[in-house]
Amino acid sequence: MVLDLTASSADIARVICGIPSVSGSEAVLADEIEQTVSAYPHLEVTRHGNTIVARTDLGRPQRVVIAGHIDTVPINGNVPTRDIDVDGVPHLWGRGTVDMKAGVAVQLKLAAELSAPAVDITWMWYDNEEVDESQNGLFLLASARPDLFAADFAILGEPSDGCVEGGCNGTMRAVIRTRGVRAHSARSWVGENAIHGAAPILTRLAQYRAREITVEGLGYREGLNAVSIHGGVAGNVIPDLCEIEVNYRFAPSKSVADAEAHVRAAFDGFEVEITDAAPGARPGLDAPIAQRFLAAVGGEAHAKYGWTDVARFSAMGVPAVNYGPGDPHLAHHDEERVPLAQIDEVERGLRAWLTAS
Amino acid sequence: MVLDLTASSADIARVICGIPSVSGSEAVLADEIEQTVSAYPHLEVTRHGNTIVARTDLGRPQRVVIAGHIDTVPINGNVPTRDIDVDGVPHLWGRGTVDMKAGVAVQLKLAAELSAPAVDITWMWYDNEEVDESQNGLFLLASARPDLFAADFAILGEPSDGCVEGGCNGTMRAVIRTRGVRAHSARSWVGENAIHGAAPILTRLAQYRAREITVEGLGYREGLNAVSIHGGVAGNVIPDLCEIEVNYRFAPSKSVADAEAHVRAAFDGFEVEITDAAPGARPGLDAPIAQRFLAAVGGEAHAKYGWTDVARFSAMGVPAVNYGPGDPHLAHHDEERVPLAQIDEVERGLRAWLTAS
Repeated sequence: MVLDLTASSADIARVICGIPSVSGSEAVLADEIEQTVSAYPHLEVTRHGNTIVARTDLGRPQRVVIAGHIDTVPINGNVPTRDIDVDGVPHLWGRGTVDMKAGVAVQLKLAAELSAPAVDITWMWYDNEEVDESQNGLFLLASARPDLFAADFAILGEPSDGCVEGGCNGTMRAVIRTRGVRAHSARSWVGENAIHGAAPILTRLAQYRAREITVEGLGYREGLNAVSIHGGVAGNVIPDLCEIEVNYRFAPSKSVADAEAHVRAAFDGFEVEITDAAPGARPGLDAPIAQRFLAAVGGEAHAKYGWTDVARFSAMGVPAVNYGPGDPHLAHHDEERVPLAQIDEVERGLRAWLTAS
Repeated sequence: MVLDLTASSADIARVICGIPSVSGSEAVLADEIEQTVSAYPHLEVTRHGNTIVARTDLGRPQRVVIAGHIDTVPINGNVPTRDIDVDGVPHLWGRGTVDMKAGVAVQLKLAAELSAPAVDITWMWYDNEEVDESQNGLFLLASARPDLFAADFAILGEPSDGCVEGGCNGTMRAVIRTRGVRAHSARSWVGENAIHGAAPILTRLAQYRAREITVEGLGYREGLNAVSIHGGVAGNVIPDLCEIEVNYRFAPSKSVADAEAHVRAAFDGFEVEITDAAPGARPGLDAPIAQRFLAAVGGEAHAKYGWTDVARFSAMGVPAVNYGPGDPHLAHHDEERVPLAQIDEVERGLRAWLTAS
């Protein structure tokens, strides 16, 4: 079976939402996409695992990557999709409608129709975005075929409510430890309670005031939060270890080293182990190609807070933004739903830019 | 095989330490004890599970219970026992030497030898003291045969460094909870961090100053401690729940209701759930029989901090004390060891009292 890409983007979204593709089981949908786009002679199709790449090669002076992941988080009674009205506004409801099969539907339709775009386009539809980085289709493709990532600009179709969201915050995780001395809790004065020792750490976290940092005109709101705390040996033992895992979300103007220095300063006097870090991505909206994109799709750019694959492009030197239908707050939600009009709007925006001379 | 109770208490301790009896596997040692004491016509022997009771019935005006548990915590390369010198003092080293087979050895020897003690004696050797209360041999015996607990005084042979330790503190566990609102940690301001909300709880614990309370002349040092803390959903989620388990050790002058009021006041403003409580035991040293005991064994009585089975007797209206060889700080320690002289000393003390008119 192949997909009918002459249908409306909303209809294509309905069809591909009906093909379950929870992370790890994208093969069927990937097969359909591969077969469908292979029928278009203006596209050069490459498959890597369950990631499909379709490129134009028209010798245009500039190339853009437009990418979307085809996996979803687990279905929870929300497939098949339904057409619903929310306050009189028609929506497509169900798993994947927001994150991000409506965006993929728009991309598939434009890939088929735009046989002579103003810029060369590398379309990428990839698997395993919702799970571990090590399985992420773009990560694997970037290792195997870095040449496919050569571009002047990139657009991820992640839900951004039809607005352009530039860059993203970086993220760092660290474990803050306090140590004590075990003792029987009947003779607590013999020991030293590591959980009590963590009091100043929680106080600093509770009193921490996150900053909003402006980068290339967009305001990035930061955050420093405990995401877990663990300590304790047994109900009658004074604990000798308490571990607090914190997550620092930092503006893309900061390097990972800057972020580490900030976390170490915040917990000065305590044992700090950095366990995980990914830099943010600058919005990259100062490039002329990005300015033309903004002008074409209209509206104002906003900062993206969550880490997305735009950071991967940014790290490879390719300015990247998020632009897709759907409210990001409804991603992963059991009541996930996208306004039909927003699907059309994003299609119009992308089409206008990709066909402008 | 039967035990040779004409041997010295130290030699009996060596033999019974060589018969492993980690909680739950006391049957072999219980069999030996039962067969051994059954050979003495002045003892009336009852078995309940792996708990052995041996009673004199001489019509004496007073009766005392003398009890010891025969189980140990798990062996960790410290069986068989060894004779070692610590600063020139001969010790018996190995699992169970302190907690509490040296004490049981003294009891077995005196049970055999004292065919006409000044008071009637109910000897109890019981299993599963080191594990859940629901499996404790004394607990099970008290349910099945409460009549066997009728007595004017009780002595537990728990390690007390050869001193008399009176009564014990009570213990209460409670869970203090903070609640928040989950959110993605990239947009932490949408949520409310339950771990940060626990900061004042840890601060109160860290600042808490435990009291020492005098009960019948003995000073009972209290304690209020976190024994565990848990919170966290995932590395990118603002946690909506944090739970801190606290353990309050309270003087035997306080009831469980008093203790609960204290804990609730300490965490005023927070959600408090009492999960577990056991009252303490007053030292009971004002009874004439207890005074005679103190005079016979010599030395001064001290407060016992840890909860022991003396509280069980106390709750049944029987004054009870701990009196046994071995430093309680070495109980459960891999380097557990008892001075040989202390075993003899406790034997002399008990013998003097039990044979005094």
